[in-house]
Amino acid sequence: MATLVILRHGESVANRDNIFTGWNDVPLTAKGRQQAQAAGKLVAQTGLQFGALHTSMLQRAIVTSNLVLEAIDQLYIPEYKSWRLNERHYGALRGKNKDKVREEVGEKQIKIWRRSFKTVPPLLDHITQDRRYDRFGPHIEPLGESLEMAYHRLMPYWVDQIAPRLLDGHNQLVVAHGSTLRALIKYLDGVADADISQVEVANGEPIQYDFDDRLNVLRKLIL
Amino acid sequence: MATLVILRHGESVANRDNIFTGWNDVPLTAKGRQQAQAAGKLVAQTGLQFGALHTSMLQRAIVTSNLVLEAIDQLYIPEYKSWRLNERHYGALRGKNKDKVREEVGEKQIKIWRRSFKTVPPLLDHITQDRRYDRFGPHIEPLGESLEMAYHRLMPYWVDQIAPRLLDGHNQLVVAHGSTLRALIKYLDGVADADISQVEVANGEPIQYDFDDRLNVLRKLIL
Repeated sequence: MATLVILRHGESVANRDNIFTGWNDVPLTAKGRQQAQAAGKLVAQTGLQFGALHTSMLQRAIVTSNLVLEAIDQLYIPEYKSWRLNERHYGALRGKNKDKVREEVGEKQIKIWRRSFKTVPPLLDHITQDRRYDRFGPHIEPLGESLEMAYHRLMPYWVDQIAPRLLDGHNQLVVAHGSTLRALIKYLDGVADADISQVEVANGEPIQYDFDDRLNVLRKLIL
Repeated sequence: MATLVILRHGESVANRDNIFTGWNDVPLTAKGRQQAQAAGKLVAQTGLQFGALHTSMLQRAIVTSNLVLEAIDQLYIPEYKSWRLNERHYGALRGKNKDKVREEVGEKQIKIWRRSFKTVPPLLDHITQDRRYDRFGPHIEPLGESLEMAYHRLMPYWVDQIAPRLLDGHNQLVVAHGSTLRALIKYLDGVADADISQVEVANGEPIQYDFDDRLNVLRKLIL
C-alpha cells in the first residue's frame, strides 16, 4: 500500500492572461508561487513521506515542485524531470489568446480543442527544436497533440517510473499540468473517452490516491 | 573539452550565527537567497549550457541550486542530490557556537579542527539516524569526519558521476559546501595536505574550471 499525490502547477502568466501554452515555458505569477506554497502546506498536513517527486521539463511545474518540497521539508528526495509529464502540446494554438481564438472559431470548436480526447489542434508547420530536448534525439517534439496523444506518451513514464515505486511501497508526488493530469486521472479512475471533457484539475489543488498492493485505488480525495 | 562550475551555498542561518553545522539541515537566510540569485546571474553571464547539476541532500545547497537554475533559465536539467556532496560532518561540534568553543579550547585547537586535513573533530556517541538516509542502509551516517574522511567519501561521486559527464563534453554544475568544495579543489588543484588550511571558499562565489579532453585543468577563474 502506497499513496500518490498529484498536483497541477500554480498559476502561470499564461493562465493569468488566458493564453494557450502547451510546451511554451512560461513562469509562475506571484499568485502561482503562493498557490504552490499553500499546496505544500496541505501536503505537509498529511504527514506523508515521499520516495520521489516527478515533474515535467517546464519551469511552472519545476518551480511549483521546489516550493512544495520546501514546504514539506523534503527537499532531499530525488526530483525527476521528464518531457513525458510536459503539458499537452497545443500546436499552432500555442501563444494565442483563448478569447480571440473563440471569436474566430466559436465556442463549440474551442471546447472541442480544449476538452475532447481525440481531437488534434491545428499543427505547427515545423518542429521548434528547443535545445532542452536535444539529449532525447530529434523525434520527441510534437507539432501538436490531442489529449489522447499526450496520454500515450505519458503512460510509459507511469508504467516504468511511478507505478513500480508505488508497488515497492514508496509514496510518490507528481507535479504536472492540466492536461497530463487529466490523462493520468482518466487512467486511474477509468474515465470513458466521452466523459473526460468533464474532468478539470485546478491550479495548486493536490489530489491524493491511496492504493492497495496491486495498485487498485482504495481512496481518492482532494486535499 | 568541458567546463565545471562549483559553488558554495549562500549564507545559512548557521553561517550568520557562527555555528558549527555539518550535516545539520539549516535553511538559508534572506541574504543567502540573494547571494544564490547573484551567483546565478554571474553563471548566466558565462552563457554556459549545463548537462546536469549535482548537489547535496542538505537544503541550503538544494535551495541555492534551484535559485541558480532559475537565474540561468536551465531549471529543466537533471539535478542530482547525493549525501557524498554533504558538508563535512562536524561530529560533537555541530550545533555549537564557534566563539564559545574557541573560549573553551583556544584559537589553535579550533583552527586545527576547522582547517587541517587529517584531524577528526570530537565524535558523536551515537548515529543520528536521519530518515533521509534510510534508503542507503544503516552505514553512511558518520559520527564525525576529518576533511580527509569527507574527501574519501566525496571522490567516488566525482569519479562515477561528474568526471564521466565532463569527459563526454557536457558542462557540469556542482553546488555544495565549504569543506566538500575544499576537498574537491584539493583534488583538482593538487593541493598538498599541509597547504589545504589556506584554501577557503566563500558563500555564493562561483569558481569555473575549464578542462581539456583528459580532464587536465586548462584554466581556473572566480566568476
